[in-house]
Parts: sequence; structure tokens; C-alpha cells
Amino acid sequence: MQELKDRILKDGQVRPGNVLKVDSFLNHQMDVELLDHIGAEFYRLYKDAGINKILTIEASGIGIACLVATHFHVPMVFAKKAKSINIDGDVYHSKVHSFTYGKDYDITVSQKFLNKGDRVLLIDDFMANGKAMNGLIDVCEQAGAEIVGIGICIEKGFQPGGEDLRKRGFRVESLAIVENMTDDSLTFRE
Amino acid sequence: MQELKDRILKDGQVRPGNVLKVDSFLNHQMDVELLDHIGAEFYRLYKDAGINKILTIEASGIGIACLVATHFHVPMVFAKKAKSINIDGDVYHSKVHSFTYGKDYDITVSQKFLNKGDRVLLIDDFMANGKAMNGLIDVCEQAGAEIVGIGICIEKGFQPGGEDLRKRGFRVESLAIVENMTDDSLTFRE
Repeated sequence: MQELKDRILKDGQVRPGNVLKVDSFLNHQMDVELLDHIGAEFYRLYKDAGINKILTIEASGIGIACLVATHFHVPMVFAKKAKSINIDGDVYHSKVHSFTYGKDYDITVSQKFLNKGDRVLLIDDFMANGKAMNGLIDVCEQAGAEIVGIGICIEKGFQPGGEDLRKRGFRVESLAIVENMTDDSLTFRE
Repeated sequence: MQELKDRILKDGQVRPGNVLKVDSFLNHQMDVELLDHIGAEFYRLYKDAGINKILTIEASGIGIACLVATHFHVPMVFAKKAKSINIDGDVYHSKVHSFTYGKDYDITVSQKFLNKGDRVLLIDDFMANGKAMNGLIDVCEQAGAEIVGIGICIEKGFQPGGEDLRKRGFRVESLAIVENMTDDSLTFRE
């Protein structure tokens, strides 16, 4: 998606440790017009896939997934990272390792909102090692929901998450795949 | 907002401890069409207020604030609850007590995204004791940003948060104010 790539080149910042900061438009301050265009692009890619639910994980996935869901006219569900005392009833849960925060955490989704027969599009802002996405896949498999596709805004192509998922047969669509990045250059996969 | 009140009466569930569960449409599974209408309503209320930024707090505020921001055509910023290793530079921070999770937590906002001269609309899904909102107010005051208004989807009118903020002179617009709730009845303030 050229608009996203252009924006990454304009406003993204590379930091030590393969960190790509896009917090001015994607995951802290959010440019909602860009998010809307991202939603339109995922709709273009997946509109014939019979999707009836968008699933993401808090926190930065939520805004993107909401704008995606408006294009599909389906509900959005987000996996929670901490068990609230307000979540009652049965939940699916999975354990995820976060490199960003340097720790493991549990994710939970109420069983009311993910069911056998659901055709789910998984959405997230970033894919690097794919740990969060594997947590969402685990939750869908527990529910018996079908994962129709995975939509990622920015995939770090030099880390194994996206490739691993494609090898497992998932349809992964990433709007920008970073092939290589250094302090003074960033290149996308064609 | 009648549509939101109707939805609360239809799908909300009262739980012991003054808990109103709206997780089927507002803060776990999200009805994005309803969120879009909520965004339109806040725009109707605040369209002449010169707002240039929407500020909320992760996680459940993010989806709502994104849909609000699309109506105002301004950026949305969300306060983060955990300090990521990817947040560098100077941040505003404040301490918030969560009754939902039963603990204190820090919120942070990068100083890059909140500045003197900003005219901010604060958005959240719920207001009860107002602890989260006071954290956002604190952050805005540190930044020298002007709080033009506060937009709440559901205010628990029998808890002090909303009243305290109105007494302090803030313009608080709540789309549904729950006056009273018991296991088998729920009434809204007229």
C-alpha cells in the first residue's frame, strides 16, 4: 500500500534493536484518515472471503481493527491482555511473549464472542516474530472459528513471523513489508 | 443518545458491585456502526469547539475515540498504561487507580503528541469515579493543552466522577447517564 509505505518513509524512525517507531501516526498518535484507507485496502483484499468478524489484540490493534470493521460492516472483537474482574463466564486464553515489553502475558477472549462457524480476519499493526498473532490463532482454534486471513499493517520481513504463518498455510496480507532497515535506510519488499 | 440507551437496555447486563456489562457491543466486542453513531453525536455536541485532538486511554477507549476522530478529522492520541521500551524521549505520566482491575497503574503520553495550544476532547467508554479521566486531565495540564470537553459514552450518575468534574468547570457530555441500577431494573437520568 503505497500511502502507508510513503508515510513510513516520511515519519517512521529506526531505533537500535530493529525497532521501527511509527508512533506519530499508527500506534500512539493515530492518523484516522490513514487508518480508514488501511481499512479500505484490507476490504479490497478480503471482500470476497465471507468474513463476519474482525479479531485483534489490545492495545494498538484496536483502532486499526475498528476502522477495518467499518468497511466490512461486521463486529470487531479485541483480545484482552489482563483478566478484568468484569470478564465473567468462560473465556479462551493463550499465552503470548512480548519482545516490546520483555515479558509473557495472557490474552483472553470471552467465549460468547468467538464461535464455531465464525469466519475471522485477524488484524494487527505489526508482525515481527508473530507471537501475538499466534496467540490469536490459538484462541480461534479453541473456538473452532475459521481464520480466513491475517491482515498486518507493517511486517518486518527480516523476522520470521510472516514467513512462518505463510508456511502453515495462512493467507497473510501485509500492507508494507520492511525488507531491511538500518539507521539511515529502509527498504520495502517489492 | 437514544440509540445507546436502547442498546444498553437491550444488551447490557447488571452484575453485583454496580458493574454494568456492555461487552457485547462497547468494550470487548464492538459494534462499529454504533461507535460511528456515537462519533457523530459527539461531533454534533462539540463541532463548534475548535477541537484539534482527541485523547483517550487504552484499551476500550481507543475504538470509540478513533470513530470520534473520524468525524472531527483530527488525530487521536491514546495514553498508554504500561511503559513500552519503544517509547523514548520525554513523556507525561500520571497515576490512576482502577477499580475494575483493583490496582494503581501509570499512564504515559509522549510529549511529542500533546502540546500547549492543543484544544483537546477527552473520550472514554465509562465514567464512574473519574479516576482515569483525572489522569488524562493531569496529563493535559502538564502539557499546557486546553481541555475543551469531556465525552463519555456511559456515566454512572450514582458515582461521583461526572459531578466532580462538572463542579470543577469542565464541560462533560455523557451520552447515557445511568441514574440507578439493580438486578432487574436500570433507569437513565432525563
